[in-house]
Amino acid sequence: MLKGLSRAGLGSIGSDEHLIAAAGKYGFHTVDIDARGLIDRNGLEGARALLAKYDVAIGSIGLSVEWRNSEEKFREGLSRLADDAAAAAALGCRACCTYVLPATNDKAAHFAVIATRRLRTCAQILGAYGIRLGLEFVGPHHLRTAWANPFLWTLEETLDWIAAIGEPNVGLLFDSYHWYTNGLTVADIEALSPEQIVHVHINDAPDVPVEEARDNGRLYPGEGVIDLAGFLSALNGIGYKGSVTQEILAAEPPAQSPEELLVRSQRAYDRVYKAAGLA
Amino acid sequence: MLKGLSRAGLGSIGSDEHLIAAAGKYGFHTVDIDARGLIDRNGLEGARALLAKYDVAIGSIGLSVEWRNSEEKFREGLSRLADDAAAAAALGCRACCTYVLPATNDKAAHFAVIATRRLRTCAQILGAYGIRLGLEFVGPHHLRTAWANPFLWTLEETLDWIAAIGEPNVGLLFDSYHWYTNGLTVADIEALSPEQIVHVHINDAPDVPVEEARDNGRLYPGEGVIDLAGFLSALNGIGYKGSVTQEILAAEPPAQSPEELLVRSQRAYDRVYKAAGLA
Amino acid sequence: MLKGLSRAGLGSIGSDEHLIAAAGKYGFHTVDIDARGLIDRNGLEGARALLAKYDVAIGSIGLSVEWRNSEEKFREGLSRLADDAAAAAALGCRACCTYVLPATNDKAAHFAVIATRRLRTCAQILGAYGIRLGLEFVGPHHLRTAWANPFLWTLEETLDWIAAIGEPNVGLLFDSYHWYTNGLTVADIEALSPEQIVHVHINDAPDVPVEEARDNGRLYPGEGVIDLAGFLSALNGIGYKGSVTQEILAAEPPAQSPEELLVRSQRAYDRVYKAAGLA
Amino acid sequence: MLKGLSRAGLGSIGSDEHLIAAAGKYGFHTVDIDARGLIDRNGLEGARALLAKYDVAIGSIGLSVEWRNSEEKFREGLSRLADDAAAAAALGCRACCTYVLPATNDKAAHFAVIATRRLRTCAQILGAYGIRLGLEFVGPHHLRTAWANPFLWTLEETLDWIAAIGEPNVGLLFDSYHWYTNGLTVADIEALSPEQIVHVHINDAPDVPVEEARDNGRLYPGEGVIDLAGFLSALNGIGYKGSVTQEILAAEPPAQSPEELLVRSQRAYDRVYKAAGLA
Repeated sequence: MLKGLSRAGLGSIGSDEHLIAAAGKYGFHTVDIDARGLIDRNGLEGARALLAKYDVAIGSIGLSVEWRNSEEKFREGLSRLADDAAAAAALGCRACCTYVLPATNDKAAHFAVIATRRLRTCAQILGAYGIRLGLEFVGPHHLRTAWANPFLWTLEETLDWIAAIGEPNVGLLFDSYHWYTNGLTVADIEALSPEQIVHVHINDAPDVPVEEARDNGRLYPGEGVIDLAGFLSALNGIGYKGSVTQEILAAEPPAQSPEELLVRSQRAYDRVYKAAGLA
Repeated sequence: MLKGLSRAGLGSIGSDEHLIAAAGKYGFHTVDIDARGLIDRNGLEGARALLAKYDVAIGSIGLSVEWRNSEEKFREGLSRLADDAAAAAALGCRACCTYVLPATNDKAAHFAVIATRRLRTCAQILGAYGIRLGLEFVGPHHLRTAWANPFLWTLEETLDWIAAIGEPNVGLLFDSYHWYTNGLTVADIEALSPEQIVHVHINDAPDVPVEEARDNGRLYPGEGVIDLAGFLSALNGIGYKGSVTQEILAAEPPAQSPEELLVRSQRAYDRVYKAAGLA
Repeated sequence: MLKGLSRAGLGSIGSDEHLIAAAGKYGFHTVDIDARGLIDRNGLEGARALLAKYDVAIGSIGLSVEWRNSEEKFREGLSRLADDAAAAAALGCRACCTYVLPATNDKAAHFAVIATRRLRTCAQILGAYGIRLGLEFVGPHHLRTAWANPFLWTLEETLDWIAAIGEPNVGLLFDSYHWYTNGLTVADIEALSPEQIVHVHINDAPDVPVEEARDNGRLYPGEGVIDLAGFLSALNGIGYKGSVTQEILAAEPPAQSPEELLVRSQRAYDRVYKAAGLA
Repeated sequence: MLKGLSRAGLGSIGSDEHLIAAAGKYGFHTVDIDARGLIDRNGLEGARALLAKYDVAIGSIGLSVEWRNSEEKFREGLSRLADDAAAAAALGCRACCTYVLPATNDKAAHFAVIATRRLRTCAQILGAYGIRLGLEFVGPHHLRTAWANPFLWTLEETLDWIAAIGEPNVGLLFDSYHWYTNGLTVADIEALSPEQIVHVHINDAPDVPVEEARDNGRLYPGEGVIDLAGFLSALNGIGYKGSVTQEILAAEPPAQSPEELLVRSQRAYDRVYKAAGLA
């Protein structure tokens, strides 16, 4: 499994170009960045050369389409999506991800059917470029009541949603924090096939009752209470070969410098990969 | 538009064979019956001969698949569905309908995505036989709170759901009672294309505040307060050519005999068709 | 049914802006033009104002995606398609059409499955904007052997292809020349539902054996041997309400001026509409 | 990877019940049989008990739907398919397979689009029961001209067809004979993801020019010239975990007894698995 970095947890890491260089320097294989922006600034060949120089690939791009609001906003995003997908494909990236909030101010069933159609359209466009769409279920309990009506947050619900979307290239973004806050187990991972997982996020949770773990209260891997050894060895056991990307969402900017945070991240990965019996 | 009969509103009308004969006798063009049962009892040629004898067609069959409960129940129904569809197709019927309760005890978003997948599968099987699936939105206000969580009941929501299901052969069962209890207008019908409508139900509502109209408190066409002239002329105006089938759901069995109810139904249709400027 | 103009048959008619003005002046309701170009040159409000000024709508845009060649070319077209669709939708256009050559130098079955996937993707993107995709089957016999392997050219084959594509918003571009050169009849039109037809082309054929009618040997409506009265009255009879757009493909540029050709087209429409018992 | 048996290559092996017992006795993990027949004869519990007794699972059922001929035949098969799928699912089988002849007497493009729709419907019904559909491309050169028009026979074409079918549960039946007769390499397998492969067949080819290898001239694994060590290790390397099922199609019934053929098959598997560095 590839070690990946996102910007979340690295403080003021600077440009995506700098993130790529830092990833390469600190032993990471992938970065989650905006592929189109990288090409816009460096040209296609320049972008490829930069990634090649640091032996870093793009783990996933974010879904830029606004699928949660008005139809007008949604449509505006669709033409950008084809460009995003073309850029990602040109740089060898095969994943595009979005998150699913566990509650909504809209009527839940109506929002569900509208979002099903919209995400299907997104998946169809991405699929034309060989890119998969990953849906991230979001576990922290406080978010389930942060909007008026409960939406979808469990693994089972998300798999049922993926089946409703019905496109071959839709799967999960599997985040250790949401695995933990949903009370899932190693057996729940072992019941999955690797192709059901488009992308993985890793981070840790503080030693508070699981119901109190805040979405923006995440820790570096191995600094908290999540069984990340079990998480990683189960993912590896089922044959998942993609990125495991750090995403440390926090209420406050980190006190350390980007360099210190990169060292901390590198050590965190060494620790949890070793605990999982990997490399 | 074809005048159609269902059993609802005809009391103890007897067998489907009798319903067919009665429909023919009282000037109706279609009946909503179980096509497979008709073939089972009469053979395919016998069933065709019976329909031909009375110049009556089958307007719609009901969806026998249980799509609202367990996956096991759902799967059990699927093999029956192919047989139902084969029987209906053999008798020239092109419609299969189900209703959508406006509330559910399940978590609404989760039920929405599961039902989306299940109804898509039903539509796909029906589609293999050239049969369309009609979804009936249900308007009476009291049903919206009859189960724990609100589901889908408006025209707009149902059209959005049909788009989420995403099969070419899914459309609306458009019932005058649900049109009325949703506060819809002639303009809402005029905004539709005829192919969006798979089947039509007609009946009337008592002169009570619309919020108090009970689902099982329906009247014969023209005996109540619904603008059925507007309803019918709008449907005709957009080019709808299918069945307009009487469905009188009532709390108590009717006091009249089936013969009297047939006469009453025939006169009801004559009245509202005439008011709509139709033949 | 709306009277429509394309550029084909009007000689050096000039800009799309001029075509719109000419259409309005000569009693046509729609034009087939590049919606995006119109907006690019006039702004959205300017484009809308121009169409409103002449009381002309856009009948159909052309599918700009290159779905017949390499995957690379196909993908390049997809992001443009979303922009095309957005522009068409903003101007109220609901149709986008492409033609299907009756033979191919590719292996026919392989091309069929690749094109099925590509046109589905196109339909999905168009569908997100409420636009339908019309496929034009092409009848002239000489084209069936103009490339190495026979592809699809009959109505039945095209309907089967539409079913294989499987999206609700795909239908036919029905051209009188291809209806004629396929040996189709009024009954073949009467067997269709109006929603199966996305767009209609009209033109006439010379008095030669049907096998010898050349694709670029078309005449103005009523100047040849096609039963256009039957064609139009059948389309009207099934409830088709869209554009009937003139497309006169010819080997040589016309000898008359655009003004003369517009008069000729207007008279041609008056003649065949009258013969069909319309307007 | 599971060692699997089909009837092909075992002579007069007798009933499926006997095949199950023989598979268990000779170290095979799966059998390709008719799941519904097994339940019909033994009851569901009896069928489960029999499989459990011999520690044998069902590798794949055959697709009983006739998708190559008339629409009528196709529809007749659909209701059986739901029953087949229910039976297979009840016994834990997750695969249903069919083969694709490399030529057809039908017009190739038309047959391609009809078959695309039909196989999609089959996949949709199977998918409702959690079963995947495997398409077997067929490589022997003589079959490519055995009917009038070339159809699909390469890996690339079949993957393109699977994309055209467009259902998440469709993949390949990958047969070593067709891999060999198509001139494919280990690298072609390594380019696949394991989820693209629904089922695997294994057998060997005689030492004749590849163009002359007959479809019914197959040998037991390891008795011919196919690089089965490369075949198996590549499949294992990409993470394929399903059945590798023997299928020895031959022009004449084998001279040996079923017992002798089972011993021969067992030794054949031991040999090629060992050569591939497995078990």
